[in-house]
Amino acid sequence: MAFHLLERERERGLKLAAVLEQAIQRIGHCSQCRNFSEESLCSLCASSSRDRQVLCVVESPTDLAAIEQATGYRGQYFVLMGRLSPLDGLGPEELGLAQLTERLGVGEIEELIIATNPTVEGEATAHYLAQLARAGGVRPTRLAHGVPLGGELEYVDRGTLAHAFGSRQLLD
Amino acid sequence: MAFHLLERERERGLKLAAVLEQAIQRIGHCSQCRNFSEESLCSLCASSSRDRQVLCVVESPTDLAAIEQATGYRGQYFVLMGRLSPLDGLGPEELGLAQLTERLGVGEIEELIIATNPTVEGEATAHYLAQLARAGGVRPTRLAHGVPLGGELEYVDRGTLAHAFGSRQLLD
Ligand SMILES: [Zn+2]
Ligand SMILES: [Zn+2]
Repeated sequence: MAFHLLERERERGLKLAAVLEQAIQRIGHCSQCRNFSEESLCSLCASSSRDRQVLCVVESPTDLAAIEQATGYRGQYFVLMGRLSPLDGLGPEELGLAQLTERLGVGEIEELIIATNPTVEGEATAHYLAQLARAGGVRPTRLAHGVPLGGELEYVDRGTLAHAFGSRQLLD
Repeated sequence: MAFHLLERERERGLKLAAVLEQAIQRIGHCSQCRNFSEESLCSLCASSSRDRQVLCVVESPTDLAAIEQATGYRGQYFVLMGRLSPLDGLGPEELGLAQLTERLGVGEIEELIIATNPTVEGEATAHYLAQLARAGGVRPTRLAHGVPLGGELEYVDRGTLAHAFGSRQLLD
């Protein structure tokens, strides 16, 4: 893209640069949920129609968007902007966990939905978050893992099949 | 393959045909679990080391193999050789459900693990099987569905994410 702009469209390139600069300078993080926001409190955190007793922790703004689109969730979010990853220099501090601990301690939140990815680092993060929740007297829950809908057992990886089998549920 | 054999390897082709014919004539179905078997009772059904109080229903021999490879399951199986699919002419009779009902009625089985695929037809079949189990006083269970391990929320389809979110579990 850069080459194309340099060669053919220097004027439009300059405009793009200006818009990008402005956006980067204007967009910060929501002071409450850490998601990207132009305001100090994002529209989701500011909304009076969201349930304040349920908080869903996600790794990224993309995950938040996916949950908003797929589910009818009406609670609030906390965006880690990463996951615990010591090798990448991402610890509790970088993920804003002091802020989360404080929020869990207020007593308003009843359930912490831990929606980190079911990867190795996401699971380690989930484990850590569950401990924070319990310490704050909050019930930690985790999204279900297993065979994806529409999937076929024979094409599912071994680990997922073993997990799905082991955590089978009573049908009622 | 057929062309290659006809042109280049008529002799080996004849041998292959003979082996195939023999295999097809020899391999029938296990009288108890309906899986392919050379004997009237397959080695799995005949084994004295498998738990007879748990029965796992699968759609196909491939699914049985996947579960055997991925899990430490030590119970027995029932292979539908398909799923309820009225448009394809597959009803309870074609899937051997009278035989399954009889087996559930004996009183030996305590849990029926329904491992049909989480597709539309697989779900309808699971629903039907759960009713059979309850009628026979057997506890029906179903493999967990949700986000596959190692997966990322943003790449999971909407239906699966909604289901995973809705059936979240308490972490303890
Ligand atoms: Zn916010
Ligand atoms: Zn058998």
